[in-house]
Amino acid sequence: MASSASPELSKPKILNGPGDYVLEDVPHLSDYIPDLHTYPNPLQDNPAYSVVKQYFVHVDDSVPQKVVVHKDGPRGIHFRRAGARQKVYFQPDEVHACIVTCGGLCPGLNTVVREIVCGLHHMYGVKKVLGIDGGYKGFYAKNTELNPEGGYRGFYAKNTVYLNPKAVNDIHKRGGTILGTSRGGHDTSKIVDSIQDRGINQVYIIGGDGTQRGAALIFEEIRRRGLKVSVAGIPKTIDNDIPVIDKSFGFDTAVEEAQRAINAAHVEAESFDNCIGLVKVMGRYSGFIAMHATLASRDVDCCLIPESPFYLEGPGGLFEYIEKRLKEDGHMVVVIAEGAGQELLTESIHSMTDASGNKLLQDVGLWLSQRIKDYFSKERKMLINLKYIDPTYMIRAVPSNASDNVYCTLLAQSAVHGAMAGYTGFTSGLVNGRHTYIPFNRIIEKQNKVVITDRMWARLLSSTNQPSFLSAKDVEPSTPS
Amino acid sequence: MASSASPELSKPKILNGPGDYVLEDVPHLSDYIPDLHTYPNPLQDNPAYSVVKQYFVHVDDSVPQKVVVHKDGPRGIHFRRAGARQKVYFQPDEVHACIVTCGGLCPGLNTVVREIVCGLHHMYGVKKVLGIDGGYKGFYAKNTELNPEGGYRGFYAKNTVYLNPKAVNDIHKRGGTILGTSRGGHDTSKIVDSIQDRGINQVYIIGGDGTQRGAALIFEEIRRRGLKVSVAGIPKTIDNDIPVIDKSFGFDTAVEEAQRAINAAHVEAESFDNCIGLVKVMGRYSGFIAMHATLASRDVDCCLIPESPFYLEGPGGLFEYIEKRLKEDGHMVVVIAEGAGQELLTESIHSMTDASGNKLLQDVGLWLSQRIKDYFSKERKMLINLKYIDPTYMIRAVPSNASDNVYCTLLAQSAVHGAMAGYTGFTSGLVNGRHTYIPFNRIIEKQNKVVITDRMWARLLSSTNQPSFLSAKDVEPSTPS
Amino acid sequence: MASSASPELSKPKILNGPGDYVLEDVPHLSDYIPDLHTYPNPLQDNPAYSVVKQYFVHVDDSVPQKVVVHKDGPRGIHFRRAGARQKVYFQPDEVHACIVTCGGLCPGLNTVVREIVCGLHHMYGVKKVLGIDGGYKGFYAKNTELNPEGGYRGFYAKNTVYLNPKAVNDIHKRGGTILGTSRGGHDTSKIVDSIQDRGINQVYIIGGDGTQRGAALIFEEIRRRGLKVSVAGIPKTIDNDIPVIDKSFGFDTAVEEAQRAINAAHVEAESFDNCIGLVKVMGRYSGFIAMHATLASRDVDCCLIPESPFYLEGPGGLFEYIEKRLKEDGHMVVVIAEGAGQELLTESIHSMTDASGNKLLQDVGLWLSQRIKDYFSKERKMLINLKYIDPTYMIRAVPSNASDNVYCTLLAQSAVHGAMAGYTGFTSGLVNGRHTYIPFNRIIEKQNKVVITDRMWARLLSSTNQPSFLSAKDVEPSTPS
Amino acid sequence: MASSASPELSKPKILNGPGDYVLEDVPHLSDYIPDLHTYPNPLQDNPAYSVVKQYFVHVDDSVPQKVVVHKDGPRGIHFRRAGARQKVYFQPDEVHACIVTCGGLCPGLNTVVREIVCGLHHMYGVKKVLGIDGGYKGFYAKNTELNPEGGYRGFYAKNTVYLNPKAVNDIHKRGGTILGTSRGGHDTSKIVDSIQDRGINQVYIIGGDGTQRGAALIFEEIRRRGLKVSVAGIPKTIDNDIPVIDKSFGFDTAVEEAQRAINAAHVEAESFDNCIGLVKVMGRYSGFIAMHATLASRDVDCCLIPESPFYLEGPGGLFEYIEKRLKEDGHMVVVIAEGAGQELLTESIHSMTDASGNKLLQDVGLWLSQRIKDYFSKERKMLINLKYIDPTYMIRAVPSNASDNVYCTLLAQSAVHGAMAGYTGFTSGLVNGRHTYIPFNRIIEKQNKVVITDRMWARLLSSTNQPSFLSAKDVEPSTPS
Repeated sequence: MASSASPELSKPKILNGPGDYVLEDVPHLSDYIPDLHTYPNPLQDNPAYSVVKQYFVHVDDSVPQKVVVHKDGPRGIHFRRAGARQKVYFQPDEVHACIVTCGGLCPGLNTVVREIVCGLHHMYGVKKVLGIDGGYKGFYAKNTELNPEGGYRGFYAKNTVYLNPKAVNDIHKRGGTILGTSRGGHDTSKIVDSIQDRGINQVYIIGGDGTQRGAALIFEEIRRRGLKVSVAGIPKTIDNDIPVIDKSFGFDTAVEEAQRAINAAHVEAESFDNCIGLVKVMGRYSGFIAMHATLASRDVDCCLIPESPFYLEGPGGLFEYIEKRLKEDGHMVVVIAEGAGQELLTESIHSMTDASGNKLLQDVGLWLSQRIKDYFSKERKMLINLKYIDPTYMIRAVPSNASDNVYCTLLAQSAVHGAMAGYTGFTSGLVNGRHTYIPFNRIIEKQNKVVITDRMWARLLSSTNQPSFLSAKDVEPSTPS
Repeated sequence: MASSASPELSKPKILNGPGDYVLEDVPHLSDYIPDLHTYPNPLQDNPAYSVVKQYFVHVDDSVPQKVVVHKDGPRGIHFRRAGARQKVYFQPDEVHACIVTCGGLCPGLNTVVREIVCGLHHMYGVKKVLGIDGGYKGFYAKNTELNPEGGYRGFYAKNTVYLNPKAVNDIHKRGGTILGTSRGGHDTSKIVDSIQDRGINQVYIIGGDGTQRGAALIFEEIRRRGLKVSVAGIPKTIDNDIPVIDKSFGFDTAVEEAQRAINAAHVEAESFDNCIGLVKVMGRYSGFIAMHATLASRDVDCCLIPESPFYLEGPGGLFEYIEKRLKEDGHMVVVIAEGAGQELLTESIHSMTDASGNKLLQDVGLWLSQRIKDYFSKERKMLINLKYIDPTYMIRAVPSNASDNVYCTLLAQSAVHGAMAGYTGFTSGLVNGRHTYIPFNRIIEKQNKVVITDRMWARLLSSTNQPSFLSAKDVEPSTPS
Repeated sequence: MASSASPELSKPKILNGPGDYVLEDVPHLSDYIPDLHTYPNPLQDNPAYSVVKQYFVHVDDSVPQKVVVHKDGPRGIHFRRAGARQKVYFQPDEVHACIVTCGGLCPGLNTVVREIVCGLHHMYGVKKVLGIDGGYKGFYAKNTELNPEGGYRGFYAKNTVYLNPKAVNDIHKRGGTILGTSRGGHDTSKIVDSIQDRGINQVYIIGGDGTQRGAALIFEEIRRRGLKVSVAGIPKTIDNDIPVIDKSFGFDTAVEEAQRAINAAHVEAESFDNCIGLVKVMGRYSGFIAMHATLASRDVDCCLIPESPFYLEGPGGLFEYIEKRLKEDGHMVVVIAEGAGQELLTESIHSMTDASGNKLLQDVGLWLSQRIKDYFSKERKMLINLKYIDPTYMIRAVPSNASDNVYCTLLAQSAVHGAMAGYTGFTSGLVNGRHTYIPFNRIIEKQNKVVITDRMWARLLSSTNQPSFLSAKDVEPSTPS
Repeated sequence: MASSASPELSKPKILNGPGDYVLEDVPHLSDYIPDLHTYPNPLQDNPAYSVVKQYFVHVDDSVPQKVVVHKDGPRGIHFRRAGARQKVYFQPDEVHACIVTCGGLCPGLNTVVREIVCGLHHMYGVKKVLGIDGGYKGFYAKNTELNPEGGYRGFYAKNTVYLNPKAVNDIHKRGGTILGTSRGGHDTSKIVDSIQDRGINQVYIIGGDGTQRGAALIFEEIRRRGLKVSVAGIPKTIDNDIPVIDKSFGFDTAVEEAQRAINAAHVEAESFDNCIGLVKVMGRYSGFIAMHATLASRDVDCCLIPESPFYLEGPGGLFEYIEKRLKEDGHMVVVIAEGAGQELLTESIHSMTDASGNKLLQDVGLWLSQRIKDYFSKERKMLINLKYIDPTYMIRAVPSNASDNVYCTLLAQSAVHGAMAGYTGFTSGLVNGRHTYIPFNRIIEKQNKVVITDRMWARLLSSTNQPSFLSAKDVEPSTPS
């Protein structure tokens, strides 16, 4: 895959200003295609927008990445503000857009799909919007087995290759993605061939960091071929592990839904003697759902996340803490992110990788359940109850809540405005409450993680009273949030 | 345990009438204590009841077990109708009641506890109601470790040994049981010693068939000792596996909650290619939750229950059916009751029994997940997705819904009326929509099961189109429902 | 309308048996059409049903109306048990069915529609099922204004004149009725003309007592014309005011949803000084929703229903009770059914009738709010807060819960079995937990009402401690339930 | 009231820096009390915080009000960042805090109360936290009528004058406010007398703009008297009408809950011919709930808010639009904020003011219902259905969702850190995603309103296709958001 990405193309577009102002700009079709024609934005004739003053984003509008500032401090990195531009680079009937959803489910996927379709249609008069079926491999794989008489997927796959506002009218009320999704399947050449063959000129890619990495490769290949095709990413990660942006869509909904499992664990734990309610939530590399669900719930006694190593036995360990809580209260609730404690899992199992390249993690919830049971029955001869809940799929599959619905709408509209304005190789993202265009490299270069030497984690420790599992030497300097 | 139960005492009280009418009556304190004093029912002075005509149940009121009748058919078995009687056998200030909850959680436990307390207090002016902590063993075990500063349980255990309407005012809005519960711990002698020592004369026992079996032993021992103590059972089983009664409390709530997991499985399954959503629900020996959730949801393609043996491989087997569905629709949803397919689980694991005497079942959901994955990856070389959801504790721990709340109220009030009227050794139960008193032996002699040669199961098969997994020889005659 | 109903036709079919057994049977096509051909029930070849023993209902199966019986008492009235028969009177490809929904919304309407369609299709192989748009008048009125590009209704009205299992697959997950509904519009001749013109031979009519009265007229006219057309009613009333049957579909869901409003009223009332939370729920002539919601909630201090007259001023009146509660607790919650206190509303407004013939009731909730405010501000000079909630449309519009979904399925299937078996002029209804066929006259002759001299209402009075608003002379004898 | 506020005291604290940097600082106890003693922040010894690097907020940390910036633009107004400081001005056992909640209900009130209590207790070791009962007047009015045996309020009013973590442990799971609330009742002198008499030195005031205006007066009077008392405001407004801050707590929950009413209106509207579902939501002067609920729902055809004047009759009016929608779709949904169209309501009713000084608004929902019905029945002779839903109290009374719970926690902790650090006369508020201290004058000087010439409103117009009801002359310049 890497060979097709020419290093010279991906050079960031940096613009400097006074007071150490830095703008990390996104690519534009005109960067590599000369003499592109522009057109007035059709929104200016839209009755809904005609009364809006200064509707179009000023060409210089930018949003700082850092908003905790000092009087004399530098201004730092900024991103280009998202929104409609005076001039667009596509005529409505010229646009042939496509949308693809990749990776695991996340509340709000259907809302983003819906709003790209409706945004293109209602705001720009674009009629041709193709839904790619089943993730990246839908660009090139034949879906010969799909039964047209089947369920929802079958219906859409057959009837709405081309999506329109009516076909997507109610999809935001259901979970999942009507387009279908899959992990992996990224083959840059085949995908760009397919884009070229079909005459697609706007590509909307909804997915996590692996998917956005793929989107960057698609963009580079398109640029290399000199195609007038805008590539827009909408970051999707239920784990909230994408950097730069304030939070990912569906995250609020996921935290809300995780409460239900925690409440159940709490009720179970309170009803039995020496009972431990254990809840596993999503979070392969980042513990944001675990942390926020814990902070929102107030019924959790211990929250274990990938960023904070812990140990089971000995002074300051988890077993000691559990025993203490059981002796004090008779019960406790533990929340564990799926990626926590990986280093503790047996090394005997050869590490495998799944199709998207994520390390296949053992189920830490089942493992921890067994370890706790063994410890108390064998070493402590203590009768305990353990109730284990894994609500993962129940969380992922719910429709997005109202707040996420509005958020998804704005993300989708930002992406549409950006593509119409000729921007490409960008991700639509919320930065400090403002919608921006972020270059791919900033999204994929690292993962967003809970900073355990920061204040939010301290708030959690304070609310649970759990041990930090840290010794002084573990603590490294960090930037406060 | 069995030694204390004198066989001659448990002889059923049978009354015959014309047209093959049979009344299976419940024991009464006056059966073994002569010359008991009676008092006018205090309800007749209660303003709420004073305007009610014929408030008191007629001494001859009975309810038939069978309501599908023929013009010329026999009348069959009847049970005594529940409700307030003209005469009671306890004076309000003489009553010293206790309540115990045993076994697993079930929506509505707190409502039943609340309504026994409020019913005794408001209807009969009874002030002394003791909550027994943590199931049967709470009668005699010391709870020295409970921390009074702890959570809800600690608070109640310490502060409200004696329950009153104010202490239980809001408990129906939370799941679980404020009294705590446990499995097993039944020691007839110690329990009856404790009842005798404390001067308790009304015992309300909420629990499943094991618990009701224990209640029967307690009643027999009390009768043997000649004590004026009423023993009333309220049947609790989230599995709906108690015979005779229409349905158990909490069942509607559990089916409602199970829908959430099925919906999630359906959304997941529809969003991925060749995806199987697998949901395990409660049901050790009876598949009622699985069957009703399947009938209510309409998104289920296969429902597996303990009563209906199935097999995996070969023609007519589960694997063949799964493959067929995946080829037709691209996805499917399977619901499995926890006790289904036990005979298929490996015999290599020595069977163990848990504290309540239930056979410890392997987790059939995890087992089936693995078998399906192995089959398609190894034997069929087919790429499938499998999403497994186990919502057990999330279902058990929710508060009861409105319908169950009303049902729990009537069950509790029936039990209170019965105990006040001197009945003992009975279970409060709904039969054909009417509240009745049922002798213990009818409740514990067998389990209620889905009759797979009956119409309800046929409806399910018709709605899922799943194979029956039956050959003609498997089918035995049954009574239609 | 009345002229077309020949009195001699509607004579009840009564069958007597020993022990004062009475069967109130339903009409059958063969009552007035001689020499009808019969066919074996296709279910006997259905794999789902082939293993069921005694699947077909015995010709003598009946269900008693009264299940509280005495040893020596009479057996009383029975109804014919619902279910599949050995012989059917229609061949699958001969059937041309139609479904109509009339009156106000009720949770479960779509489930009933779905299950009639699926039942006919899957159980009997019937393909022609017509959805009548917008209630009775849809039989004959032209819907020329419906826009095919509109919303759901438009879609269905245009595309699915003929309903099939796929078109109705997901409709049970949404509230309302996809067929549309209306009040009134009953014109017997035009409707039967339409039925005859279209060649319809099975008519499924879902609606309340007014609608069932219309169905009876349609049946009589069809009988008069000698048509081979089965008319089956499915009783719908969110108020639960239809007699004979155990409860109406959607009732459980409605009570559940009403809790939300009561909870809100309780929270508001507790947060302000001297605050009254007032909730109006449905119930024009029957207070079942108000009563059950009150019993389920436990936060209600006063429940006012049509069956129990009340008065505002003076000793024992509502104002006195409100003042007492505010002085004791600082707050209270009142639930009022929409039809309560009608006799108190000003007579100055001329009574009007709405299209379905129901007396147009004034909004008692707004009226009572004003009266309470006036009384305390003007007569008592007391500062009170009053929070009025009218959740009517929020209750009606929710999808049915799991329990109602199963119930609707069985109601619909019973109706289908009945029509296929040649029964006509019947209502499908649950009696003492068993599905039966009830002659129209029993359903429409009176309304089901809360019996305020019965035990359920006494339970409510006991739980709220409200005054009975009754003097001794108000109390008349009634049959206990 | 105004006399006690000395104008010279309220002079804003402005600090300037390079690049037109402006810091609008908040008052500090040391501004008017010399030689105050400081202490090390006890958090530095808290195990949860001990591992946090740079836990304490840097003295120069500030947050810009405007984050859409230009390369060469001015830096503009900043606010002081909230958070823990190295030095505090109170010793734990010296602190005597009080909390008061004022105005209408809002989801999250109990969470804020809980977290102030827990924050003071767990982070700073403060034990004396007084709950003021029933709003401002609770500072000085006697609550002699409260019944200690009453409900929740009574229990708390009696037992927990002094709040501790255990007493508030579960209150975030219930709606309303355990402290009670009221409108008005602000008497600066009496309140400050009460504060002084009781020795209170930290005052936490939770309420809307009227309440914050009162808090400003209390602060000025305290400053005039030279008391060492910190006054911290937490802004509460379900309408989201407080300026400067990103959004108010409870807003997300309110929008979520409003969806339920809109869904119901949509279902009703779709089920009847020519049916209009009309939903009134909160918003006296600002239409944020209406706008966000409309954007989130996608089922709304017209959204009416106070900021956007509309008219009923004539071309471009509401009636014309309704008729158009009914003809096209057969149904429509209208959402109206309670303060919309006030200028249209009849002038015949003398305007009155309620206790908090808000203009008593007529119920615009009932008024509009009547106007629509009249117009179509009388002027257009068109049969329409109108279903009106007012979910106000059901929205206000729900518990806060997970996202609002976390938000409330941070708001409360920020206020606690600020008061401990000696800041006073400030409001705790989120600005561009960062918690800040905002001087009272910025919060109360104007109301936050939907800018109808801005892009968010254009998005709404675009999604509903409703007329703008604006002529060109109505449009004035505004700052884009």
